[in-house]
Amino acid sequence: MLELRLVQGSLLKKVVEAVRDVVHNANLYCSSSGFSLQFIDSSHVALVSILLRPEGFEHYRCDRNISMGINLNNMSKILRCAGNDDIITVRAEDGTACLNLMFESPTQDKISDFEMNLMDIKSEHLEIKEKYNAIVKMPSADFYRICRDLSSIGDIVTISVTKEGLKFSSTTGDIGAASRQNNVVDKPEEATVIKMDEPVSSKFALRYLKSFTKATPLSNTVTISLSKKLPIEVEYKIAEIGYVRFYLAPKIEDEVDDTEPKD
Amino acid sequence: MLELRLVQGSLLKKVVEAVRDVVHNANLYCSSSGFSLQFIDSSHVALVSILLRPEGFEHYRCDRNISMGINLNNMSKILRCAGNDDIITVRAEDGTACLNLMFESPTQDKISDFEMNLMDIKSEHLEIKEKYNAIVKMPSADFYRICRDLSSIGDIVTISVTKEGLKFSSTTGDIGAASRQNNVVDKPEEATVIKMDEPVSSKFALRYLKSFTKATPLSNTVTISLSKKLPIEVEYKIAEIGYVRFYLAPKIEDEVDDTEPKD
Amino acid sequence: MLELRLVQGSLLKKVVEAVRDVVHNANLYCSSSGFSLQFIDSSHVALVSILLRPEGFEHYRCDRNISMGINLNNMSKILRCAGNDDIITVRAEDGTACLNLMFESPTQDKISDFEMNLMDIKSEHLEIKEKYNAIVKMPSADFYRICRDLSSIGDIVTISVTKEGLKFSSTTGDIGAASRQNNVVDKPEEATVIKMDEPVSSKFALRYLKSFTKATPLSNTVTISLSKKLPIEVEYKIAEIGYVRFYLAPKIEDEVDDTEPKD
Repeated sequence: MLELRLVQGSLLKKVVEAVRDVVHNANLYCSSSGFSLQFIDSSHVALVSILLRPEGFEHYRCDRNISMGINLNNMSKILRCAGNDDIITVRAEDGTACLNLMFESPTQDKISDFEMNLMDIKSEHLEIKEKYNAIVKMPSADFYRICRDLSSIGDIVTISVTKEGLKFSSTTGDIGAASRQNNVVDKPEEATVIKMDEPVSSKFALRYLKSFTKATPLSNTVTISLSKKLPIEVEYKIAEIGYVRFYLAPKIEDEVDDTEPKD
Repeated sequence: MLELRLVQGSLLKKVVEAVRDVVHNANLYCSSSGFSLQFIDSSHVALVSILLRPEGFEHYRCDRNISMGINLNNMSKILRCAGNDDIITVRAEDGTACLNLMFESPTQDKISDFEMNLMDIKSEHLEIKEKYNAIVKMPSADFYRICRDLSSIGDIVTISVTKEGLKFSSTTGDIGAASRQNNVVDKPEEATVIKMDEPVSSKFALRYLKSFTKATPLSNTVTISLSKKLPIEVEYKIAEIGYVRFYLAPKIEDEVDDTEPKD
Repeated sequence: MLELRLVQGSLLKKVVEAVRDVVHNANLYCSSSGFSLQFIDSSHVALVSILLRPEGFEHYRCDRNISMGINLNNMSKILRCAGNDDIITVRAEDGTACLNLMFESPTQDKISDFEMNLMDIKSEHLEIKEKYNAIVKMPSADFYRICRDLSSIGDIVTISVTKEGLKFSSTTGDIGAASRQNNVVDKPEEATVIKMDEPVSSKFALRYLKSFTKATPLSNTVTISLSKKLPIEVEYKIAEIGYVRFYLAPKIEDEVDDTEPKD
């Protein structure tokens, strides 16, 4: 038996909206340590990892570990039926073929019940190393703008971190070249903060980074972690409850590009 | 000679927008008792009935009964040219082939004149029985949300009225099942109010109900009337002036569905 | 060497957005008297003329006259990457194949650099006579609405100026006829002001006029100048800095229409 009650139900809406461009079908794992989802895209280029800890729920009961295959588009359709102030209860019996979602309006005069069919999904688990050469914390809205702006001009971005600041640059044959420099300044809020042991510079596919920024409504800041030749980690913290993390493998120079997502 | 002057011209805009998804060409009837329109869709599943009473107009002159065939899309295009504060005057000579619409800005510095070509439309008149087993009054915005939400999940809704409340439920093979319960609570405003002599439960095509909710801007409340095996009536009152009413035949169990509107 | 620094960078964004529906590729001319662009569309029906005077720039250096072929869609893509409060610096070396654009945030913590490839464009220069029979000054938002409204109903508008006011009228076979009269009233602001030596009435293609109204964000007022059988001039002033002017040849009665822009 699984029963979770989330007072701030809009959080679950935001989490699903944040990842459903990257993840379509995935297994949701529940255990006594939390509600999690890990998904590797078919090209093994991008990975999404979500965690919601039990402390974030008003009520969290999970009698035994359970894995449920869900279609995130269907889950999104159902969650859009929840009002922004609704309390969401998620329920599943042991061995069930469907997940129950209940939305209660704060005044209890409106109650919506949904049964979502579950699926059988094969998945693999990937160990993620968390040792990075450079960690950048910046406003999530600024990261969103940079990804949106540069992807209107080019396909690949080079992200470079030095002690002085953070630089995003892109070159295209068609329009010209673009670069954006965020300097480290002495402002407590809204600033770009850098921790590093050595400078890093890596290239990434902009379309993936842009799709990660769908998580912007989850947090005012985003943490970007980089190491040479290793995947970038883009983390959006979800209040005190957990996180959504995206990983993307770097583009290796002169590599033939067959891993780009298609429109 | 017909001459009507409507100070709150935006009302006419809202009425035309409310029905033009369901009605394309229809006859407008004017008599000394008001300005009305009745339309039955070609599949005989849905019916629209509009009434604007003479009391709603600053000036209402209708020398003899007149029937005018209009294209509601053309009328909508013309009415969109009226400012929201404009005074609208509708004029037609006896035996004319066009309807005159004049929009005056409140300060009289801007005047727009339109001549709309009329059409010859055959129409039938249907008597509507107005004896219902259950009458539900609820916020129109809430009814809009329920129709929008459920139609993203299923095609058919079962509407059930009991003394305890109102329930909308829908089942689909694909996603799962959905239901929404509105409980009767003791709040004077924004509440769902039910008057009934016996419980009713009927099935309806969601796409029609959803198109009826285009009338939501006309009124804060909607009145839904139900009887066993009879069409549902969905009424939006227009201030003190009149109403827009929609009627939809119920889905009979095991019936082959050939009456669905196509996209 | 060319170097221009524009503190109110959003102005350059608005100018490019104002004209890029009408102009696709054009030569930008810089000299000591300003930054200008003149473009005649391929059908010789419409003409765009832009001027930004040196006084509008914080810094204006132009060592020698320079002509640069630009693609306005690429320039628009780049300018959309500028924040609304950004300071824009435009730079070009003599004999260069690209134009540099730099955007600085007001607090200098974010700097974006772009290199835009230049093109080779053949262009012709047209002398514009500026003697008009009637000059109308009206709110630009009102002119925008009239063009939008009438173009939803017809293709051609007749603009008539008399001492009493300004009239826009359009006739179509399909819907009917439409006209809009702006009367001269005694209000200092928001009014239609007319200066004329004789009444004028000319016909124009609405689709061009509608595309000119993309310049509406540049100014609260628009000045429309008319002479018999001569092109209309539609001018949007850019603060104290300059202007965007559009010219459109009138439709001559019974002329076969082969100059309409295609969608």
